[in-house]
Formats: sequence, C-alpha cells, structure tokens
Amino acid sequence: MSAKAKKKQSNTSWGGRFKTPPARGAQAFTASIGFDIRLYPYDIRASIAHAEMLAQVKILSTPDAKKIVAGLRQVEKEIESGAFKPGVEDEDIHMAVERRLREKIGAVGAKLHAARSRNDQVITDVRLFTKDAIRDIDAGIAELQSALVAVAAAHLDAVMPGYTHMQRAQPVLLGHHLLAYHDMLSRDRGRLGDCFVRTDVLPLGAGAIAGTTLPIDRAFVAKTLGFARIAENSMDAVSDRDFIAELLAAAAILFAHLSRLAGEIVLWATSEYGFVTLHDAYSTGSSMMPQKKNPDIAELVRGKSGRVYGNLVSLLTTMKGLPLAYNSDLQEDKEPLFDTVDTANASLRTLAAMIRSLRFNTARMKDAASDGFLLATDLAEYLVAAGTPFREAHEITGRIVLHCLERGISPTDLSLDEFRKFSKAFSRDLLALLTAEQAVARRKTIGGTSGVNVRRRLAELKKKK
Amino acid sequence: MSAKAKKKQSNTSWGGRFKTPPARGAQAFTASIGFDIRLYPYDIRASIAHAEMLAQVKILSTPDAKKIVAGLRQVEKEIESGAFKPGVEDEDIHMAVERRLREKIGAVGAKLHAARSRNDQVITDVRLFTKDAIRDIDAGIAELQSALVAVAAAHLDAVMPGYTHMQRAQPVLLGHHLLAYHDMLSRDRGRLGDCFVRTDVLPLGAGAIAGTTLPIDRAFVAKTLGFARIAENSMDAVSDRDFIAELLAAAAILFAHLSRLAGEIVLWATSEYGFVTLHDAYSTGSSMMPQKKNPDIAELVRGKSGRVYGNLVSLLTTMKGLPLAYNSDLQEDKEPLFDTVDTANASLRTLAAMIRSLRFNTARMKDAASDGFLLATDLAEYLVAAGTPFREAHEITGRIVLHCLERGISPTDLSLDEFRKFSKAFSRDLLALLTAEQAVARRKTIGGTSGVNVRRRLAELKKKK
Amino acid sequence: MSAKAKKKQSNTSWGGRFKTPPARGAQAFTASIGFDIRLYPYDIRASIAHAEMLAQVKILSTPDAKKIVAGLRQVEKEIESGAFKPGVEDEDIHMAVERRLREKIGAVGAKLHAARSRNDQVITDVRLFTKDAIRDIDAGIAELQSALVAVAAAHLDAVMPGYTHMQRAQPVLLGHHLLAYHDMLSRDRGRLGDCFVRTDVLPLGAGAIAGTTLPIDRAFVAKTLGFARIAENSMDAVSDRDFIAELLAAAAILFAHLSRLAGEIVLWATSEYGFVTLHDAYSTGSSMMPQKKNPDIAELVRGKSGRVYGNLVSLLTTMKGLPLAYNSDLQEDKEPLFDTVDTANASLRTLAAMIRSLRFNTARMKDAASDGFLLATDLAEYLVAAGTPFREAHEITGRIVLHCLERGISPTDLSLDEFRKFSKAFSRDLLALLTAEQAVARRKTIGGTSGVNVRRRLAELKKKK
Amino acid sequence: MSAKAKKKQSNTSWGGRFKTPPARGAQAFTASIGFDIRLYPYDIRASIAHAEMLAQVKILSTPDAKKIVAGLRQVEKEIESGAFKPGVEDEDIHMAVERRLREKIGAVGAKLHAARSRNDQVITDVRLFTKDAIRDIDAGIAELQSALVAVAAAHLDAVMPGYTHMQRAQPVLLGHHLLAYHDMLSRDRGRLGDCFVRTDVLPLGAGAIAGTTLPIDRAFVAKTLGFARIAENSMDAVSDRDFIAELLAAAAILFAHLSRLAGEIVLWATSEYGFVTLHDAYSTGSSMMPQKKNPDIAELVRGKSGRVYGNLVSLLTTMKGLPLAYNSDLQEDKEPLFDTVDTANASLRTLAAMIRSLRFNTARMKDAASDGFLLATDLAEYLVAAGTPFREAHEITGRIVLHCLERGISPTDLSLDEFRKFSKAFSRDLLALLTAEQAVARRKTIGGTSGVNVRRRLAELKKKK
Repeated sequence: MSAKAKKKQSNTSWGGRFKTPPARGAQAFTASIGFDIRLYPYDIRASIAHAEMLAQVKILSTPDAKKIVAGLRQVEKEIESGAFKPGVEDEDIHMAVERRLREKIGAVGAKLHAARSRNDQVITDVRLFTKDAIRDIDAGIAELQSALVAVAAAHLDAVMPGYTHMQRAQPVLLGHHLLAYHDMLSRDRGRLGDCFVRTDVLPLGAGAIAGTTLPIDRAFVAKTLGFARIAENSMDAVSDRDFIAELLAAAAILFAHLSRLAGEIVLWATSEYGFVTLHDAYSTGSSMMPQKKNPDIAELVRGKSGRVYGNLVSLLTTMKGLPLAYNSDLQEDKEPLFDTVDTANASLRTLAAMIRSLRFNTARMKDAASDGFLLATDLAEYLVAAGTPFREAHEITGRIVLHCLERGISPTDLSLDEFRKFSKAFSRDLLALLTAEQAVARRKTIGGTSGVNVRRRLAELKKKK
Repeated sequence: MSAKAKKKQSNTSWGGRFKTPPARGAQAFTASIGFDIRLYPYDIRASIAHAEMLAQVKILSTPDAKKIVAGLRQVEKEIESGAFKPGVEDEDIHMAVERRLREKIGAVGAKLHAARSRNDQVITDVRLFTKDAIRDIDAGIAELQSALVAVAAAHLDAVMPGYTHMQRAQPVLLGHHLLAYHDMLSRDRGRLGDCFVRTDVLPLGAGAIAGTTLPIDRAFVAKTLGFARIAENSMDAVSDRDFIAELLAAAAILFAHLSRLAGEIVLWATSEYGFVTLHDAYSTGSSMMPQKKNPDIAELVRGKSGRVYGNLVSLLTTMKGLPLAYNSDLQEDKEPLFDTVDTANASLRTLAAMIRSLRFNTARMKDAASDGFLLATDLAEYLVAAGTPFREAHEITGRIVLHCLERGISPTDLSLDEFRKFSKAFSRDLLALLTAEQAVARRKTIGGTSGVNVRRRLAELKKKK
Repeated sequence: MSAKAKKKQSNTSWGGRFKTPPARGAQAFTASIGFDIRLYPYDIRASIAHAEMLAQVKILSTPDAKKIVAGLRQVEKEIESGAFKPGVEDEDIHMAVERRLREKIGAVGAKLHAARSRNDQVITDVRLFTKDAIRDIDAGIAELQSALVAVAAAHLDAVMPGYTHMQRAQPVLLGHHLLAYHDMLSRDRGRLGDCFVRTDVLPLGAGAIAGTTLPIDRAFVAKTLGFARIAENSMDAVSDRDFIAELLAAAAILFAHLSRLAGEIVLWATSEYGFVTLHDAYSTGSSMMPQKKNPDIAELVRGKSGRVYGNLVSLLTTMKGLPLAYNSDLQEDKEPLFDTVDTANASLRTLAAMIRSLRFNTARMKDAASDGFLLATDLAEYLVAAGTPFREAHEITGRIVLHCLERGISPTDLSLDEFRKFSKAFSRDLLALLTAEQAVARRKTIGGTSGVNVRRRLAELKKKK
Repeated sequence: MSAKAKKKQSNTSWGGRFKTPPARGAQAFTASIGFDIRLYPYDIRASIAHAEMLAQVKILSTPDAKKIVAGLRQVEKEIESGAFKPGVEDEDIHMAVERRLREKIGAVGAKLHAARSRNDQVITDVRLFTKDAIRDIDAGIAELQSALVAVAAAHLDAVMPGYTHMQRAQPVLLGHHLLAYHDMLSRDRGRLGDCFVRTDVLPLGAGAIAGTTLPIDRAFVAKTLGFARIAENSMDAVSDRDFIAELLAAAAILFAHLSRLAGEIVLWATSEYGFVTLHDAYSTGSSMMPQKKNPDIAELVRGKSGRVYGNLVSLLTTMKGLPLAYNSDLQEDKEPLFDTVDTANASLRTLAAMIRSLRFNTARMKDAASDGFLLATDLAEYLVAAGTPFREAHEITGRIVLHCLERGISPTDLSLDEFRKFSKAFSRDLLALLTAEQAVARRKTIGGTSGVNVRRRLAELKKKK
C-alpha cells in the first residue's frame, strides 16, 4: 500500500482491519458528507454533551474534556466561516468533525468516540435537527394561518359561492371558506406536535447495537441536550427512523392541503373566476406573452406536493424489509428529510406573504353568489320547515329549478304566486329570505357559514395566539 | 322517457331537475354500493341518531321518528340476513337504506333526509367505521406484542448475534432483539391513538357545504353517536379526509415494521441461519418440490407492505389539488381505507399466531453468537476503560482482528501474552470477560442488552397490560 | 390428526411432508382463490396446452391426455356456470381446477402436474391474462381517441382561449386543444404496445426454479398458447413481474393524462367557464341541493388516478429487495393488476361516452378567446417581423398591455395612431390581424393551432384507423 | 420603484407589464437556476440551432446570427470555467444565458428569443439532456451486465442452492443465477430504448402554447439538434412530461432489480451464507466495532431504490390533474429527473466494480447445494418418468422426505432397498442421479440450469456485444 493510500485510509474510522483503502468510486458513492454537512451544529452539540458526560463518569479527565469541548467549538466556527471544508475522504460529518478536532487538539481528540458509535451518533444529530425542523414548520404554518385570518377579518361580509363538484352550491362567506383551510392547518400542527413527542427521545448510548460496557450516564446526556425521554432498546434506537417517516407523512398531508389552497388561488386568479388579483410582486410574467401575469407561487406550491409525497414514498421504501439493526440503506433517510423540511418552510412562508398581498374582488364574488339557483336548498328547507317531507320538498324544488332553467330565469325571478303553483306551503315570508346574504346568515348552527359563527371563530382564534 | 327509465330514475336521490335518467354505464361507473355496503351498520346508527335529533328539535314528530327508527332497525336486519340486497341502481348505501326504509314505512321515510346531505352523512359513517377500525388494529398490535413478549419470556437467556449491515456485530439477547419490535409497535399504537383523537369529530350537521337553515342540535347527535368533538367548519367537515390519510400513513409505518420482522423470520428460517423452525400449521409446501416448508405467512406480510404503502399513495394522490368542498374524487377514499384495515387486522393476528408457534433453535443461535470476533468491541472498550484513547483502542483491536483472520483463529483463542503483544493495557481479568454471555451481561446501562435490562422491561410490560 | 383434518390436508398440494394441516387462520390468510379465481380461463387454457405437450413428448399417453383435456373443458364450464365454486381450502385457482379435475376424471388427473410447478403455471396464466388486458385497454384508449376526434371534427372552427398557468394566453382551436390529448393517448398506446412485446414470453417449463429433468417441449407450448418468445432463464421466468410493473406504470401515465382531461371537463362545466353543458345521462345530482348537476364521471376518473398510482407503488414496493427466485410476496401482484385493468377499461369507455354527450358552448368560448389581451404575442411578433429585436418588441407590447389595463380597455380598442405612439413599426396592416381568428389562422407552422393544421391532422387520423 | 429595483427587474424576462419587481422571497422561491444550471450545454446548443434557423428564414440577418452564435459559445465557456456564475435574479438558465449574451454582444442579443418561448425552450433542453442520460444509463447497465457475465464465465461449474421462499429448492449453477439478473437488465435496456424513441421529439417551435406567426423552419432545427421527429401539437409539446415519467418508471423497475441483486450480495456476504467475501476496497468498516466489514455499497444501492421510486411518485403527483397547457408545477420535473439519472449512473457503475471484486466461495456454495433434500424434485420426476402419476410421485417423495427428517438423515443416505420400500418404480439407475451436479446437468430443456444451457447463453451474449 502506498504512503498516500495509507494516509487516506487513516482518515477512515475503521482502518485497522483493512489491507487496502477504499476504491475512489466506492468512497465517493458511500460518502454522505455532501449532504450531512448541514448537521454540523447538531453533531458538535451532541459531541460536547457526550464529552461532558464522559468526564462526569470519569472516562475522560476533566482537562481532556475541556480541551475537547473547546476544540469542538473551534471546529464549529471553522465550518461556519468556511475555513474548514470537509471533503469526500471524510465520509461524513461525524468523521470530518473528529478528524479536524484531532488536527487541532492532537491525541486527546482520539478519546472522544469512546462509548459511542456512529450508529447512535448520527441518529442523535438527526433527532436534534428534526426537533428544530418541526418547530420551524409549525411556525410557518402559524404564519400561513395568520395570513388566512387576516384576510378573513378584512373581508368579514364578503359573500361568495360555495362549490361542490366545482358547481356553485350555496352562498358562503369568504371568511368561512378561508377558515376551512385554517382548520386543516390546525390538524397539521396537531400531527407535528404528536410527531415531536416521538422525536424527542435520546438514542445516544445505544452504541452500535447493544449498548456499551462503559459506565455511561444517558440521563445526563438527555438533560444536557434537552431530550424528554431516553430510547429504551438499543437495537431499536439505532434503526428507528419512524419519526422521520411520521414527519414526512404529516408533511404529505400538509401539502395535500396546500395544494388544495394553492389550486384554488390559481382558479380564483383566472379571468373566468376573477375573484382575486395577484400582486405584481408575487406573480411572474411570460418570456413570450407580454400580457401574462402568472400565479407562479401558487402553482409551485401545488406542484411541490409531488416532491413531498415522493420523499415519503422514498423513505418508506427504504425502510421496507430491513433486518435489525442498522443498515447503510438508512443513510438514505437524510435527503428526503432535508428536502421536505426546506420545501415546507419556504412554501408556507412564501404562500402566506402571497396571500396577504392578494386583492379580493368581492363584488365579483358577490355577483357569482347571487345566482338564484344557489338558493334551491333554502327553498327545500323552507318547505321542510313548513312540514313537507324532505324528499318531496327536494323534488318540488327540483321542478322549480328545471322550470327556471327552461325559461332562462332565476328562482329569484319568480313571484309568490308562481312559487305556490309548485307548493302551497310557500307563503309571504319566503321572498325576503331569497338572497345570498339571508342564505348565509340563516346557517347559524355550529359549523354553519353565518357571519355570527365566522366572527365568533375569528375571535377565538385571536385569543388562542 | 320510458316508464321503466322513469322508475329507475325515481330511485336516484336527485331526479327532479333531470330530464333523462343516467346512462347504464355511467350509473355502474359512479355507483359505490359495491364497496360502501359494508358501512351499513354505521349508516343506520347515524340515521337513527339523526332521526332522534330531528324529533328532539321538532322537525320530526315523535311518532314519525319512532316509525323511522323502527324501520331503520328492520332494514339493518334485512341487510344482515341478506334478505335485502341493494343493487347498482341504489348508487350507494345511503340511498339503498333510504329506499328500503321508504318501501317499508311509506311516505314518512321521505322525512329522514331533512337537514342533512350525503356529503355530511357519508363522512359521518366513515368516521364511525374508522374509530372501530383503529380500535381493532390497536388490539391486533397488542396481540402481536403479547406474542413477542411471550417468546422473549420463554427464552430469557437465549443469546444470539446482533447484526448491523447483516454482519455479526455483538452478542445480544433474543429477548432484546424481540423487544426492539415491541418498542416499534408501541409507537405504532401511539400514532393510532393520536389519529383516533382527530377521527373522533362529528361532521353531521355540515349539510352539503354550508350548514343548514333548520334548527338542528349537533351536540345531541355527537353525544348519541359518541363523538368527542364537533367539526367547527362545515366546508372542512365535508371535504376533510385527513383522518383516513393519517390512518393509512400510520399503517404504512406499521407495515414497514412488520415487513422488517417478517423478513427476519424468513431469514431465520433459512437453512443458513437455522434460528427457527416453522410449525407445520403455519407454513406451506410446494406443488413441485416435496421437501419444501415455506414461511408463506411471513412472506405475505412482508409483501403486503406494498398494498399498504400503495393505499396511502392512492389517497394522497386523490386529495391533491382538489378545490373546496366535496368532490366526487373523494368517493375513492373508501377502498384503500377498507383494504388497509383488513390487511392490518389479518396480518397482525396471523403473524402473532405464527410467531407463537415458532420453535427457536437457541443452541444454533448461541453458536453463532460465540464467534469470537463479536467481542472486538469489548476488547476496545476494555482498553478504553484502562485508559487508552478510543481511536487507538479501536486501531489496536483492528490489528488483533486482522491477526486472527490471517491465521484462521478467533480472538478468544489468543492467550494473555499474545494480547499483550498488541497492548500492555490488557491484563489478567481480560480472559474471563471474553464470552458472549459476559458481553451481554456487561451492557447494563439503560437500553443495553443485558439480562437485567430485558427482565426489568418484560416486568414493566406485564404490569402495563 | 383428525380424519377431517387429514381430509382437508389432502386437498393441499404439498401434504406428504407435513404432519399437521394448516391452521384455519393461516389458510385463509395465504389463500389467493378469492381473487385469482378470475384467471380460470387462462389456467385451463394453459393446462390444456401443457397436457397436449406432455402427450406429444410421451410423458402422458394419448388417451390420458384426451381425458384430461376433456375434463378441463368440463371444469371450465362448471366454473363459468357457477356449478363449481372453489373454496378457501383450495388455496388458489390452480389447485381448485386440479382438485375438481380429479373429482371428475379420477386418478389420471394426478398426472397433469408433471414437469411444471405452480411457480411457472401461475405466471403463465397471468401473462395470458395481461396480453388480453393490454389489448382491451388499447381498444378503450382508441375509443376515447375517437370521441375526441369526433368532437374536434364537429367543431372545426370553434375558437377558445389557450391557457398557460390557467391564464388566458393565446387563442387556439378547440380541435387543437382536444388533439393535444389525442397525442398523449397515442403515446400511451405506444407504451402499451412495447409492454405487450415484453409480456409475450412463455414462462411455462421453468418449473419451480431450475427447469425440469423431464423432456418437455416448450416451443410446442409457446406455439399452442400463442407466445412469441420463450423465457431464457428459469429463475428469471418464475420471479419476473416486470411486465406487470411496466403495465401499471404505463397505466399511471395514462391516468395522469386522463386526470388532466377530466379535470378540464370539470373546469369547463363550471358556471365560471361555461364552455360545456353536461348531458343529464352523464351527470348526477345532489341529495340536498336540487339545482345541482355534477360532473361525477370526470371527477371519478380524476380521482381514480389515485388508485392507479397506488397500485404501481404497491407492486414496486413488493418487488423491492426480494432475493431470487419465487417468494410468496409475489402473490401480491394480482390485485393491483386486476384493479388497474378494470379501472382503466371502465374509465376509458365511460369517459368516451360522456365526452361524446357533451354540448360545447362555442359562443361562450369564442367570447373568452376574443379578449384582446390574448393578441399581445401577435403584437410582439408583428414588431419582430418588422425588424424590432424580440426583447424590445416584448417590452413595447408590455407597455401597451399596461396602458390598456390602466384604462380598462383592450388592445383591440386602440387606433393605429395610438399603437404608433408605442412603436413606429406598427403600420396599416396591423388592425386587420387583431382578431382571435387571425391569430389562430396565422399559426401555420408545423404543430401550430391553425385550422389548416388541425384539418390536416384530423384527416391523417381518420386514414390511420 | 427604486433604481436598484428597476435594475433588478430589467433582468426579468417579463418586465414591461409589471409595476413592482418581485418580492425577494418570491423570487428565490420561484427561481430554478439553482438546479437547471446543469442544462446549460443543452440550452446553448438549442439556442445556436434556433439562431441558425432564424437566419435561414431571414428573421435574423446572417451577421446577427453569427454574432449570437459566437456569443453563445463564449457564454458556454464562461459557465464551464466558472467565470460566469448565474444568480437567483436570473430566474433560470435560459434567462441567465440570454442576460450574459446581451452583456457580451449588446443589443443584437435581444433578437435571439424571437419565435420561441421559455415553454418550448426548456423542454427542448430537457429532451436533449434526457437523450444523453438514457444513453449513459444504458451504458451503465451494459457495464453491470458485463460484470455479471465475467463472474459467470469465471465460475462455470460452480453449483449453489437455488432458493424459493428463501428455502433451498434445487441445485443451480451460479452462472444461471447471475444470468437471471442479466435477463432482467436486458429488459431494462429494452424499456430505456423504447423511452428514447418517445423522447426523441422536437418541441421547439411550439412557442408558448399555439405555435408562432413567424415563418420558422422546425425541420431545420430538428435536423440540427438530431431529433428524429417533430412534436405535432403545440399544446401537447409544451406540457408533455411523459418521457420523463417513463424514464423514471423504467428506472424504478431497474432499481427493483438492483435492490434484489444488491440484497442477495448482502445476504451472500453474511457469516451464515458465506458465499462471497467482499474486497476491502469495496466495503467499509465500523467506527465502533473493529472486526466489521460491511457491504455498504450493496446496502446503499438497495436503499436507493427508495429515492428512485420516490422520484417517480413525485413527478406523477405533480402531473396529476393539471389543465393544459404549461403550468409552473412542471418546473418540478427537473430535480427528480436529475436525481434519478445521477443515482442510476453511479449505482450501476459502482455495483459493477464491486461485483467484479467479489471472491466467490464456491466450496461453501457447493456444500450448501449438496443438501440431499434438494434432490426431492428429482426423485419425484424420476417416478413420473417411470410412469407414476405426478401427484402420487410427489406424495411418495414427501414421505421419503419426512422419513429422512425424522431420522436426521439425507435422502442421499438411503439405499436402493430403502427407496423401494416407498415405491417399486425406483431402480438401479437412481442412485447415480442423486448428486447436485447431476440435478443441474439434467435440466437441459430451454431455460433450465444445465451447464450446456449456461455456456450456450454466455456464448450468445459475448457475440451480441
């Protein structure tokens, strides 16, 4: 073996047993430093806690531990500033940090890795990262919720058509429509919170697979790093990626919601709907068609549901069928995690800002909601309230609808007499009820679209914050 | 329109406005009765609660309500017994039940659908179904956990190799290995429990999209049906399928675990591993090769991860980009839900029974664990405890390993003198530590594989039940 | 073992080596008869070919072969008529057919399974099924293409807005828009055809894994069953499920297209677009809202993209990481295959019929296309043709657009003088060009939307058929 | 608007109509330059062809075209050398190249974008990239096939157990086993080739959506860029991403195969199997356990099936339900494409090198194959050849197996007399057949594992190359 090869090999963490160094292509293929570099602050934080614990239990002397901690802090600064740039020979962020540490503080650096393995080290870093990531995404959702609440509050009386099957169904308040998304997002936050609890578990101390014979103090490490619980089974600890899968699944459902919201904004911005006008600062133009103003951000958020779904499938596939405990397949956990976290954070904040910038064309919405056919359910319910069995009421109203359609008129064009040709149960008070505003106002039971409900809900949401 | 066509059409729920009946192919394509028939007990339960509420708020008279409730109970019995078989003209279970109800109790049946829509009705049924389904799956997981605990308890001292990268790594207890799965399954139950909370919300009363103008009492219905909370936004209520997606995601992670466990059983049952012998009653043979005994059940469970992952993708895809509120796309929510629930329930219980029937060949496991190379980490940690920096200890042990490999011997074949050629830190007490049993017993810190830990954990788990 | 258990066991194909019969739950869990029953015509066809071949090579006597073939034909009729109903104890369709055969023709039936295994038998059946399925789906796509061509041909001059980003971009012909889908579907057919070639390979003769020691004639079987090629490697032959995965992938791309087309129909049927009116026979109403007419079929087709994507993921997941050769996991291949085939066949034909039934509101389309801003590109290209560098032309036209927007007018409202304030390159011939019809007609280069192109293309497509 | 903002905006391609520049967050969110930078050689190649065509049809003067072409070549070199680094304000590679071109050659650069849009430009670039990518992956597969053939050829007589259900089934040749993967890979190449044909279509000239009014010559561009066909429908041309989805699907099936092969190598490298020994240069060690040698590369390839499946799901999801024609969602097509291409290329080549470096322990394989129970099928087929009906033969052999199992002996330990106690059809020639070598050699029909077949196949494959 050449001296150079020897030297290269000495950078690896497992040289002793090997007679030839890794092939160049193999090394590049297996190295994860290209993406796990971003874990460095967590890796260093966890190593500091580990060193302090080793000192606590006398595996390290206090002076050694101090040197190591100080060295780690320097390495962190060097990575931050770009002064230290790990390369492919470093395999991963863990070996990179340790290599640099040893370059800086010498032999004592070789003591740091006692009583731990990369298997428990890497997943400790990833859990620390994920806890921060969940908090960030949660804050991003809150920001989007605030934007929705702000728009709702600014258009308290705006009426629009509620749609089912994309057909105009019944008039609703814009605020009611937007709060539907608010409620979806609240569930997303609930899922993230539940995931956080299952993420908040310390694996360090599990060693490679079976724990360690050295007298470590895992409670000390958990406390130092702020973990609520300690993994109870070392084999599970090093091979568990559930918390990532769970986060990716929660993100997938979040993006189902975002794709719906974004899709509606794209729809509302069409010439045909005309419900919103995009702000120049949050839309893009065309390189060919000078008149275009495109809802690029909403389209991208909708499209990004693809990558978020894909990342979930990616991790689930990788996990499938793996025997215990750690397998290198699990190295594939990080990129989908990072990509989903970045995508969620950027999408939520950009979407929130874009939504705040929208101009709602409430007159156009109201026009659309004033389509008299949207009051058909009110007619049927009027008859029910007057004692007509529902199916009969529905049938009668269906005939009124057909009658109007064939004459090209709206139910609101009919006189009371005409209504009474369809059912004697119609009486004088009917006509006053036949407006979009009345239709909205009268849906007062819990969850209905009435202004009373929407206002109450907005007030509650303000209090919560 | 022919009389027959007319008659058919009158079975639909929305005839009044339509001039021609549905085309035959269209009707077959859109009907969901083929699969939603299984919701009938929930549909009838929810309709009874609805009727009682309508009476409570005086939309129905008490005698009418009683007739309806009695009629619904009869319809339920007829479906149960097979006396009433809905057909494709019934569209879905909701229309089938109502049609049959009207055939049985006449005109009064037409009053039942007041103040509700199929949009809120169907999702109420599905939530009731899902609450039961979550409970069943949870019980199935508990059954599998019990089987694991039973096997662990029956083989308290069985030592086996712990593997990383499928290479023998360090000796562990079989019980420790099995409890790793127990812990995964506990997280699965945690996820199901969290999902239950978000499922336990009443949508009924949301109407088609906007609530209703009729003075319904949703709290009464929630209480009657046992829902903990009431959906706060009618538009969200009818279009929310999160709880299904969340259940399918939880099931996907569960099946990642099951595929791992099943995969290990397949592995252990190979001639090469020989760790377990399958029971005849839980294995299958070959139509061609008379000597075969196949771990069919474990293979199928592993393979079924495919359908469970696929069902999740299916629903997420369907949800993507849908505008508010209800769209028929959402009719596609039921089959993946049903299939995942059935798959989970059958897999968990069959796997549990199969695991209980396994014979563990502990002698063969112990042999495998007695490979002296598995003690390399113990050697390194011995040196660390004696003051050698870890990286140096690791390097020294690596050289011992290479030395033994080249001579075709095991580290346990070395004498103390030979050990001391590699490091003076080795001393007399070393040799007694170099057994698989000692390696296991000395990993006593929390989460380590020692018998003390495994016994304590088993005791805790027994208490919990 | 009880006599009854013995009897049950004798139904299994692998009794000799086993001392206890399968546990009831295990048997139900592993049986595939519930879904593979539908393979019966293929199973019987393949068994007949196998028997004839065995006679050909003298493994069977001619009288025995004749008895077997006649018996198989009877079993087929019994399944067809429902006279023979296999049960869960039959495991799968292969054992069911053989059991019934032996009941009918006695001992000679026991000779049929020589020189084959269920491993090569099942995948032969599935390949026969899949070849038929591909042909059916291809015919379904052709039917949908015909519907698109018919609609295009019936509205040769209908102009509508072409959209990018769902913003009106440039006028196009409806026929051009529809032919875009035609071209997508042609690629889908291309993929199916390529998949057919890889499906058209005979596995029978591979035995369980290694071939057979008996002197079979695979070429005879291939010819009898109409397979173009013979699988070259027995281990690959029994474990290859590529052709299914490839079909499911082709179907997934097909459903990406169908979801786009269906989504556009839903959009066009909105009040806001109003481009099409649904036929009563191909739409559904609401159980609550009497005025509704819903594009149910289009929504369902769009939603069914979920299950088709999910089925692909399901099979890919199942295939992941399986060692050679056959594993029971592969039993999970059939349900996603069947479901995708059924979904594709029904969706294509129902969608085709629905599209033929649509009424296109060409006046409304034309109105939308007459929005003067859609001519902005024509203005810019006018300037380019007159020598203005494109970016400058684009900028000038952008200023014209902004000028009009701010005044609430359309570019078509401007006089030549006004145009010339923005650029002296505009001259007299400009104004005549500023209509949707001109914009369409002038896009004559290959692939452009001009009527000349669309007519030529329709003529070509008619010839092809 | 500030001067600085103005300046920034002037970099966008669509400034004229907009009054405020993009918000900083919005710009970063929508920019694709971070990943589409890698398309630069294709973008420049396509722009050169476009400029030459514009000169050909006199939209550009020849000197202008020459300046543009020379400028583009300079820009290419600047990007190559790193002298020009596009930033987020450039949006994408197309705008970056054009901006830099204009900086270098001045006003004439503004003429390049005539008669094209980014919509047709981007997808032209991506098709050029994809054609190269398909060729690269195909070459990578060929490399892996060569490695398999080389190993097979080097171990022509190596016998090993063939497995079904991971149970030893029948003896096979190692070469036969490896050639099963060869055949899978040949189908993968077939799929790539078919995909290539559908990729090899020129979209340029489709403009933004409808073609162009300028007299372009698409055939010229197709010929210059080496496209076999021209997209026939402009709307399809700009929104078609099928070829990417098809490539990602073909790659997913490829990775199903690679995960199987890699999984088997991991298995074979276990202590339990011991069929292969990893080369030091193609394996990794452990940071904690000095004795470990891990099949990292195989594990990673297996694990990377996750990202490749995920990328497919990602794109399919993004495509779902998009209306015609271009939508920004489609910007999400590139990252999954790039990632899959890079993953496939690296995995194939690293795996090929690793496989070539494996040492096969043929003695151990042979030992495993010599398990007498693997000859049970041969016993049964012996009886069939002697006239016993197959089911009876199977039953008899099953009893022999059970007899041996209960006595802890192998069928090869039985004497002829003992065999004849089970069936009189056994005679003298039997015993000589009962070896693994005979079992292999006698499976001579097409596709069987005999050495004759494997040698013939290897010879054919060598010729093909």
